[in-house]
Amino acid sequence: MKKLPQPRSGCPLSYALDFIGDKWTLVVLRDLIILRKRHFHEFLGSDEGIATNILTDRLKQLESAGLVTRVRDPAQARRVVYAPTAKALDLLPAMLEILRWGDKYFAGSKAPRALVRGIARDRDALVAGLRSGHRGKR
Amino acid sequence: MKKLPQPRSGCPLSYALDFIGDKWTLVVLRDLIILRKRHFHEFLGSDEGIATNILTDRLKQLESAGLVTRVRDPAQARRVVYAPTAKALDLLPAMLEILRWGDKYFAGSKAPRALVRGIARDRDALVAGLRSGHRGKR
Repeated sequence: MKKLPQPRSGCPLSYALDFIGDKWTLVVLRDLIILRKRHFHEFLGSDEGIATNILTDRLKQLESAGLVTRVRDPAQARRVVYAPTAKALDLLPAMLEILRWGDKYFAGSKAPRALVRGIARDRDALVAGLRSGHRGKR
Repeated sequence: MKKLPQPRSGCPLSYALDFIGDKWTLVVLRDLIILRKRHFHEFLGSDEGIATNILTDRLKQLESAGLVTRVRDPAQARRVVYAPTAKALDLLPAMLEILRWGDKYFAGSKAPRALVRGIARDRDALVAGLRSGHRGKR
C-alpha cells in the first residue's frame, strides 16, 4: 500500500488533485466505471496504450486511496478483477464534466454522441445509469 | 510557446487530461477564475506553496493551450497580468464537481460552506456568477 501525500492546503480541489491529478488515473477509472472493464489486460488494451508499469502503479495508488478494490474473479478463482468503490463512483459527475469540456474543444473526439447529449440534458440521470450494476463497496 | 502533445486517443476525457491532468494546473486556474488573482506573485502566495519554476512552466503551458492570456497591467504598464480565456472559463463545471468531491472526502476542507452548498443547489447559477466580470477572450 502506497501512502498518500499530506494535503497541500485546506482546499478540496487541491486535495482531489492528489488523487486524480495526473494523466492516467481518470483514464483507468473511465475504463472501470464507464466502460466496465475488470481485468488488468483489458485496461492495457485501451486506445491510450498505457504501459504495464504505469498501470500497475496507478492501480496500487487507486487501491491505497480507497478508490478501487481487488477481488477474486468469480469466473476463475486464480484471477483478480478490479472494482470501483463508492468513493470512485462519486467521481462520475467530475469525470463527465471533464469529458464534456474535452468534447467541446477536441475536433477528433470519438465520444458517443448519445453520451455527450446525455451529460447536457440530464446529467444526474446519466450518472444514475452509469452507477447501476456497480456495487461500489466502501 | 510549448507544443501540446498529440492526442493519445479519440477520448475527450483523455484529451482534457493532456491540459489539466497534473497537480497544479487546476490550482492555478482556481486562483485565476475563482479567487480572481491576476499577478504572478499572487499565485506564488497561495497556500499550496507552488514553486516559482513550476508556476512559470504552468503559466506557459496554459498560454500555449489557449487557457490563459497575458496582458499589460492597466494599473502599471510594466507589469503583466494573467486572465482566463473562454476555454478556461468553460472548465468551471468540471472544477466545481472536483471541488465538491474533494470536500466530501477531505475532513480538513476549508472551502466556504456557501460555495459547496451552491454547487449542490444550483451549480449553473454559481457558474454564471463566477464567470461574471471575466472577459473570457478567445
